[in-house]
Amino acid sequence: MKRFVLFASFAGVLTCAGAVAQQLAYQGQNRLAVPPDYREWVFLTSSLDLNYSDGTDNPSVLDNVFVNPEAYRAFVRTGTWPDKTMIVKENRIAASAGTISKSGKFQTQVLNMEMHVKDEARFSGKWAFFTSGDGKSPGVLVPMTATCYSCHSGHGAVDTTFVQFYPTLLEIAKTKGTLSPGYLNDQRSLSGAR
Amino acid sequence: MKRFVLFASFAGVLTCAGAVAQQLAYQGQNRLAVPPDYREWVFLTSSLDLNYSDGTDNPSVLDNVFVNPEAYRAFVRTGTWPDKTMIVKENRIAASAGTISKSGKFQTQVLNMEMHVKDEARFSGKWAFFTSGDGKSPGVLVPMTATCYSCHSGHGAVDTTFVQFYPTLLEIAKTKGTLSPGYLNDQRSLSGAR
Repeated sequence: MKRFVLFASFAGVLTCAGAVAQQLAYQGQNRLAVPPDYREWVFLTSSLDLNYSDGTDNPSVLDNVFVNPEAYRAFVRTGTWPDKTMIVKENRIAASAGTISKSGKFQTQVLNMEMHVKDEARFSGKWAFFTSGDGKSPGVLVPMTATCYSCHSGHGAVDTTFVQFYPTLLEIAKTKGTLSPGYLNDQRSLSGAR
Repeated sequence: MKRFVLFASFAGVLTCAGAVAQQLAYQGQNRLAVPPDYREWVFLTSSLDLNYSDGTDNPSVLDNVFVNPEAYRAFVRTGTWPDKTMIVKENRIAASAGTISKSGKFQTQVLNMEMHVKDEARFSGKWAFFTSGDGKSPGVLVPMTATCYSCHSGHGAVDTTFVQFYPTLLEIAKTKGTLSPGYLNDQRSLSGAR
């Protein structure tokens, strides 16, 4: 009976893990599929108009950030991201509230999507960005010379990612001592400026 | 061997289900514990300043809405909520962006929390609201005479819930034909007013 129980527990772990999609589905050299189940991944944060566009004519955007569950669990344990992490930033058009609530903004259709993936064997800087123009078609690799790489690398709170905007993970990173030198330097500059 | 595999599969299902917390943990007659793992539940939407407060002196709020995974899966299948559904609305103070992004708003600490639960045997109207003043201490039952009940009942897109603000679920409800008469009437009024 004990052997049965052990076997069953092991199978149970396999069954749960088996339900997790392989999130890094590349298509050729420079494209990455949008994971079909990312809306069921672990949610990290939502922000208003923190997108990287310069223009002021763009629609107002309320974004959602999700991460694959295995990477989330590793971050909770260690304070940083494991290999094969995939962070999805789904940008939705924000509509102004109408009938029920007289003010405020709420989320409507997907405008586009950014995917930030860690694949140490594939990318020289370990991480890469892909953008999907409609949030459904595969993301296209952003050239490594783009400013998003240098900005994330210099200012991301943990391992080139903007954990400073993920409130639950920021607390974990503080506890685990994994905040980046660049972020800590930014914080010191801010304190000095006050 | 076949018997082993069957047994293992069954145990696998049990193991997965066993990892899911019992979300409706009442404390006495009128209190409900905040589920410890709600941040790992399925995310539904985020909105800016759609809270129910009247005053304009309140801090700006970016909320997050989560639902327990079993209820989410039932909604995807049926277009409506099963018994024991628990929807958590976590209200976070929105800070104005600073150094990296020159404008926009991002989420900081939890201000408070609303929990909306379906428990047909316990509540005469099937659903009840609980509010936690800090998002950690147990929620307190909102009296059934409060306007939130009549507003949700009259205008919620599906089964007294504001699915009109949950973009992925709204599409499912349209497909399944589960939109409420009150919501459909509101939509007709809006169309007529244009």
